[in-house]
Amino acid sequence: MHLADEKIKEFLREDVGYGDITSAALVPMDQRAAAHLYYREPGVASGLEEAALVFTVLGCVARQLVPDGSRVEAEQTLLEVRGPARALLTGERTALNIVCRMAGIASQTAEAVRRAASVNPLVRVAATRKTAPGLRDLDKKAVEHGGGDPHRFRLDDCVLIKDNHLELVPSITEAVQRARRLVSFTKKIEVEVRTLAEAEEAARAGAEIIMFDNMPPKAIKETLGSLDERGLREGRVFEASGGVTLDNIAEYAASGVDVISLGSLTHSVRSLDVKLEIEMM
Amino acid sequence: MHLADEKIKEFLREDVGYGDITSAALVPMDQRAAAHLYYREPGVASGLEEAALVFTVLGCVARQLVPDGSRVEAEQTLLEVRGPARALLTGERTALNIVCRMAGIASQTAEAVRRAASVNPLVRVAATRKTAPGLRDLDKKAVEHGGGDPHRFRLDDCVLIKDNHLELVPSITEAVQRARRLVSFTKKIEVEVRTLAEAEEAARAGAEIIMFDNMPPKAIKETLGSLDERGLREGRVFEASGGVTLDNIAEYAASGVDVISLGSLTHSVRSLDVKLEIEMM
Amino acid sequence: MHLADEKIKEFLREDVGYGDITSAALVPMDQRAAAHLYYREPGVASGLEEAALVFTVLGCVARQLVPDGSRVEAEQTLLEVRGPARALLTGERTALNIVCRMAGIASQTAEAVRRAASVNPLVRVAATRKTAPGLRDLDKKAVEHGGGDPHRFRLDDCVLIKDNHLELVPSITEAVQRARRLVSFTKKIEVEVRTLAEAEEAARAGAEIIMFDNMPPKAIKETLGSLDERGLREGRVFEASGGVTLDNIAEYAASGVDVISLGSLTHSVRSLDVKLEIEMM
Amino acid sequence: MHLADEKIKEFLREDVGYGDITSAALVPMDQRAAAHLYYREPGVASGLEEAALVFTVLGCVARQLVPDGSRVEAEQTLLEVRGPARALLTGERTALNIVCRMAGIASQTAEAVRRAASVNPLVRVAATRKTAPGLRDLDKKAVEHGGGDPHRFRLDDCVLIKDNHLELVPSITEAVQRARRLVSFTKKIEVEVRTLAEAEEAARAGAEIIMFDNMPPKAIKETLGSLDERGLREGRVFEASGGVTLDNIAEYAASGVDVISLGSLTHSVRSLDVKLEIEMM
Amino acid sequence: MHLADEKIKEFLREDVGYGDITSAALVPMDQRAAAHLYYREPGVASGLEEAALVFTVLGCVARQLVPDGSRVEAEQTLLEVRGPARALLTGERTALNIVCRMAGIASQTAEAVRRAASVNPLVRVAATRKTAPGLRDLDKKAVEHGGGDPHRFRLDDCVLIKDNHLELVPSITEAVQRARRLVSFTKKIEVEVRTLAEAEEAARAGAEIIMFDNMPPKAIKETLGSLDERGLREGRVFEASGGVTLDNIAEYAASGVDVISLGSLTHSVRSLDVKLEIEMM
Amino acid sequence: MHLADEKIKEFLREDVGYGDITSAALVPMDQRAAAHLYYREPGVASGLEEAALVFTVLGCVARQLVPDGSRVEAEQTLLEVRGPARALLTGERTALNIVCRMAGIASQTAEAVRRAASVNPLVRVAATRKTAPGLRDLDKKAVEHGGGDPHRFRLDDCVLIKDNHLELVPSITEAVQRARRLVSFTKKIEVEVRTLAEAEEAARAGAEIIMFDNMPPKAIKETLGSLDERGLREGRVFEASGGVTLDNIAEYAASGVDVISLGSLTHSVRSLDVKLEIEMM
Repeated sequence: MHLADEKIKEFLREDVGYGDITSAALVPMDQRAAAHLYYREPGVASGLEEAALVFTVLGCVARQLVPDGSRVEAEQTLLEVRGPARALLTGERTALNIVCRMAGIASQTAEAVRRAASVNPLVRVAATRKTAPGLRDLDKKAVEHGGGDPHRFRLDDCVLIKDNHLELVPSITEAVQRARRLVSFTKKIEVEVRTLAEAEEAARAGAEIIMFDNMPPKAIKETLGSLDERGLREGRVFEASGGVTLDNIAEYAASGVDVISLGSLTHSVRSLDVKLEIEMM
Repeated sequence: MHLADEKIKEFLREDVGYGDITSAALVPMDQRAAAHLYYREPGVASGLEEAALVFTVLGCVARQLVPDGSRVEAEQTLLEVRGPARALLTGERTALNIVCRMAGIASQTAEAVRRAASVNPLVRVAATRKTAPGLRDLDKKAVEHGGGDPHRFRLDDCVLIKDNHLELVPSITEAVQRARRLVSFTKKIEVEVRTLAEAEEAARAGAEIIMFDNMPPKAIKETLGSLDERGLREGRVFEASGGVTLDNIAEYAASGVDVISLGSLTHSVRSLDVKLEIEMM
Repeated sequence: MHLADEKIKEFLREDVGYGDITSAALVPMDQRAAAHLYYREPGVASGLEEAALVFTVLGCVARQLVPDGSRVEAEQTLLEVRGPARALLTGERTALNIVCRMAGIASQTAEAVRRAASVNPLVRVAATRKTAPGLRDLDKKAVEHGGGDPHRFRLDDCVLIKDNHLELVPSITEAVQRARRLVSFTKKIEVEVRTLAEAEEAARAGAEIIMFDNMPPKAIKETLGSLDERGLREGRVFEASGGVTLDNIAEYAASGVDVISLGSLTHSVRSLDVKLEIEMM
Repeated sequence: MHLADEKIKEFLREDVGYGDITSAALVPMDQRAAAHLYYREPGVASGLEEAALVFTVLGCVARQLVPDGSRVEAEQTLLEVRGPARALLTGERTALNIVCRMAGIASQTAEAVRRAASVNPLVRVAATRKTAPGLRDLDKKAVEHGGGDPHRFRLDDCVLIKDNHLELVPSITEAVQRARRLVSFTKKIEVEVRTLAEAEEAARAGAEIIMFDNMPPKAIKETLGSLDERGLREGRVFEASGGVTLDNIAEYAASGVDVISLGSLTHSVRSLDVKLEIEMM
Repeated sequence: MHLADEKIKEFLREDVGYGDITSAALVPMDQRAAAHLYYREPGVASGLEEAALVFTVLGCVARQLVPDGSRVEAEQTLLEVRGPARALLTGERTALNIVCRMAGIASQTAEAVRRAASVNPLVRVAATRKTAPGLRDLDKKAVEHGGGDPHRFRLDDCVLIKDNHLELVPSITEAVQRARRLVSFTKKIEVEVRTLAEAEEAARAGAEIIMFDNMPPKAIKETLGSLDERGLREGRVFEASGGVTLDNIAEYAASGVDVISLGSLTHSVRSLDVKLEIEMM
Repeated sequence: MHLADEKIKEFLREDVGYGDITSAALVPMDQRAAAHLYYREPGVASGLEEAALVFTVLGCVARQLVPDGSRVEAEQTLLEVRGPARALLTGERTALNIVCRMAGIASQTAEAVRRAASVNPLVRVAATRKTAPGLRDLDKKAVEHGGGDPHRFRLDDCVLIKDNHLELVPSITEAVQRARRLVSFTKKIEVEVRTLAEAEEAARAGAEIIMFDNMPPKAIKETLGSLDERGLREGRVFEASGGVTLDNIAEYAASGVDVISLGSLTHSVRSLDVKLEIEMM
């Protein structure tokens, strides 16, 4: 039994339907097989736990050789599976679809982290809520495997005040105060800003996190400098968001922010090249 | 009521959790708002029906201005929504996550179709089963909106005989015959081949679809020529799969195949740049 | 773990409710029992895998002695179960309800196949989509255990053009062409016809399957003859549907069709007489 | 909104899959249609409420002309539906599968009631728990539409002491007493008996219902006479079960029992001949 | 596998969300731990089976030392668990929330039973349908563990005629007769009364259970006396309901009723003081 | 459509089963009724939105007269419902079970807030995760209606370091640092402490929230004083938890903490006395 069984079964049912008609016709019921899963390019292990579960649900025995989150080589065996040949063939695509996506996210995140860290080892690379519908948990998990920060899981676990909210409230100060009063003390408050004035107001109002929305690295750097001068830098988390790519992430890292978030980590995933090699026994 | 409600509600619950704590704190319960959704780049409409459903579930009124599958301009209004401001803010991310992915798939598919058709107007561009887990239906729908062919929905709706299967059967001929005998007559039989000899055997055995697996366009062209000479081209569907990209798809189209399938259409999606602009009323 | 757990649990919960109050009151918690399941009449094994799962879910150990699809004798032990007496009594009705229906379908199908094959050993006996709501998979599986063809699983796995569709399209030819163009190349196209002219048009248009709808065997035979003369018989599948019963199926088999489909295989099932004999230990 | 939505949607999804590919290809999206549903033989209305819900879920407007449970003529219109032609075609099979089964059960039950009542107008015809898995509620509802008694819904709503239970308890008396003590006072206690002695013991022990299990009508009549002489007939319900058919039900009715139960009402259903006639508009 | 898995998983997911972020950060993945569960006050064991299942789902091994329903001492070990430390910490709150509530209900019920039985050892203490939404089964089970009677599980397992129903029917007699005619013979009929005249009418009409609604113990005693004189006491169950508390339950017990029901057993639960002590290994 | 439909339907199905057999037998199908819901004691409105949804699902029209969270009088009408009499009777218990619990929680919370605020108007009264399984969202919502703080929704939305965690880490300082490094920057970090030394270490380590676990008000006051002297009071949230009751909450409020949390708000709920008065029309 496993808490995530239902989700894995849902994925399998989606791909299998009434049955793998090809394997049922061509593979003897008692034919056994073994398989090993590996990447065809270097990357970060992710989704192996779920892939193992896919095969377990189908009656195979799966052994994960490397913990998710490890950096792995091309051709390195990551997962071994044994069981009925039909089950291996039936689960192959579902397992690969999970690993290809998660490995893609984890590896891309690791690359973003590497580039940012090369400039500023303390900066954190974060994801956003721009995940594939229904895959929030797997997408965020993969980001963590890649060394990234998952950021908010849901609308309910951190306050994030955006321009749409600010239209309805007299000021940032008032907005932060209302949130402080009406939202649980267990939640942090983040405010999106576009100028130094807004950042300053948010900082003074007590926002724990201040997000520079679509501001270029240079402007961020200056703003942080001004805030520092006013004693408003310390004790607060500053996040850069909007327009960040793998190509310019180092510039953002150099700007002095604490966190850089990229929607592309999860909304524009390049699938990793992953292979399940099946051998009949 | 709508057959897809549950899925949409599942997506919403995933993003919302116990509630949009920010909007609940800052937006008056009776504040009304209007929103319009548009792309910030040209593309193909997709996911608008689902996005409308997101807002309907939350108690808004949504009007879709353009049918999914239409080619649309940057900045063109595609969906209008009216309702409680809290509902619009709460549904925003879920709706956008759906549209960004589907629009990305549809637009990328349309581009693949355009490139292939420029060489061979009759060739069909197809997806594969390499979709995001849980999103098979939306991913395939988006492919169709882009003018592509969804290919197999599941393991149960078409026979596809691969090398793993062939290891267990004396010959392609025998494999096709077994499938013909044991699988419903309502299903087509497709066989993966790598050489002319295999293609010829599959054709003679009665396979309705023959897939050239990882064969370069030139080899495909020659193979098709040889099959034609032997009277084995007519009445069968030939598919090229493996290694196809937007860059080389025209070469595959020129090879004379009927179908070109690309896993990347759904496994490596570039999110389209989509915006929901909300105005308080 | 098993992919079909949830369905089996749903069936059990439906029958059990909050608990088997009779057994809870009269059977000691640690009382063990053994049971064996058998038919009281000869037939075809079907539903044994699901019955075993019922008892496994309830904490028993079940051993299936005969594969589903085998022809079995009256009184032959098909399944052995051991476990807590309460569990055996609680699962009895659910297991039997599954087996009685599936065994009934499989055995009736086998009889239809026997009668058709006595005249034409190559003819295929097929089911329809007239299954009990929620039981499509089990009903179709039972048909296959009886040697029948499941036919379409769903509306999405084969095109079937009926008179209602033809009302909206200029001609059968046009209908087949549109379906060919708009539906995935992985799907076959079937057309319902009532006359030779329609059959001829469907065949020339490229329909892979042609269904004679409610045509008497004699008319079918003549039509097939005429099609053969015109070179339209070969390479196509012809199906007889409507009005077929166990009594007249041999006549249909003699008409020369490839497939005979009967809704009654699944819509009017006679439950087989199945018994679970429980012994206290 | 409707409490049974989810079940109806589950039935639809089972039949539709990713979509009605035939109608999507051939029927224009804005084509409207009307349909009416009728029986092709006389019977009892049943399943109309659920059929209406099928079409409502798909966006049609359905009007039920006759309440479920009414006796209806062949060709009488029972349900009218209007809506998108695609929706009508998509929902047709699901709606018919529900009505065919429920109408079959209701009509067969009504016939059993008629035959029993012709001899003994007070006797009650009851179903059993031998229903199709997952369809307990619809099957029992159909029995009630036909004028029958649903009997136990589940294992938790009435005690029924069978021979398997009696093996584990010293006597019927002891069994009834234990059940009385350990089961809620809101539940009736029924005991299966095979002889006068057992019936007498059950009656004296306080069983509210006594079931004659597989006893011929003559033996039942004699037993009831003997019980009456001993003052044990009055105030108890006597049920005949096992071996009852439409052919011999009148004999059971003549035996003087209060209730006659038949598993065949729900385990061996003959589908009624029902038609949905669709007209394009 | 276990029939109640899904519910337990639902409870866990509700409490855990995407993960126990604290334990994931601080507890090494391979750290093992053991735990034992005990009450900090004497009471009745309840919910231990479910608590064990919580930990089993999370991959631990749980051993229940005492059957639910046993009277247990403060500090007595009731459940032992071993497994990954993370799993124990993650499941702690869910397991405790179940046990605290069920133990509270069971223990309070046992106290009510003790007080009632001190006056009348035969009287039954019953719950009502006033349970926490979604917890009907666990709440009723806990009542039974405490020696109480669960009363109706649902609206479908016993007829209960209340004043709202009587407004629509000419008389109690007529109401009972209609229920007798229209409801399955397997269900008992209970009538709520407020006066001797109503009780007499209900008894003569054949109600199996008569509930004195909000009548003081003295009035109940007199009414039962009068019914006894008229020969209407014997063979019927009399229930007192409304206004019963732990303080006055003995007076109701002394009134001679067969059943005393208290909504407070399940609607106003005092959580028992339960502790899970975790030791790292 | 409504995001919470499924939960409400689950609650209804739990109470209704196959149907309200009493109302079906006694209430004509076309009988209409009206109902109004009120408290029989003063309190805080809560659960009205969900109660309205119960009746909407059953086909009634419900109008909420007072927003949840309002203070209301005894006998004040809070909800009006109109619809089929059967539907009102069927939904009554489910609606009341929801409102009784939520109103009980909200009203008890409001009383706790009143007592705490009488001493310290700025102190916040918070719930815990000790909610009824499956009812986390409704329980927390009710706490908010009563003016309380919901505290953590789940294990994933705030770090809370307890003694079990500290056993595995060298020091509080190290634990906070690890959490800071390994958990998303969007989460706050709370530490449970028992002494001034621990509190001081937690504060210096950067914990945003410090919980005094089972410390008496006097000790808390002294500790806060000492922390203040060391400049560690400002900018941190201090919470008192463990052993707080309505009787001593004012003392805790006087101790100077920012938050006082009580498990009893949700684990030991006294149901409010709520009535649904139904009138036939």
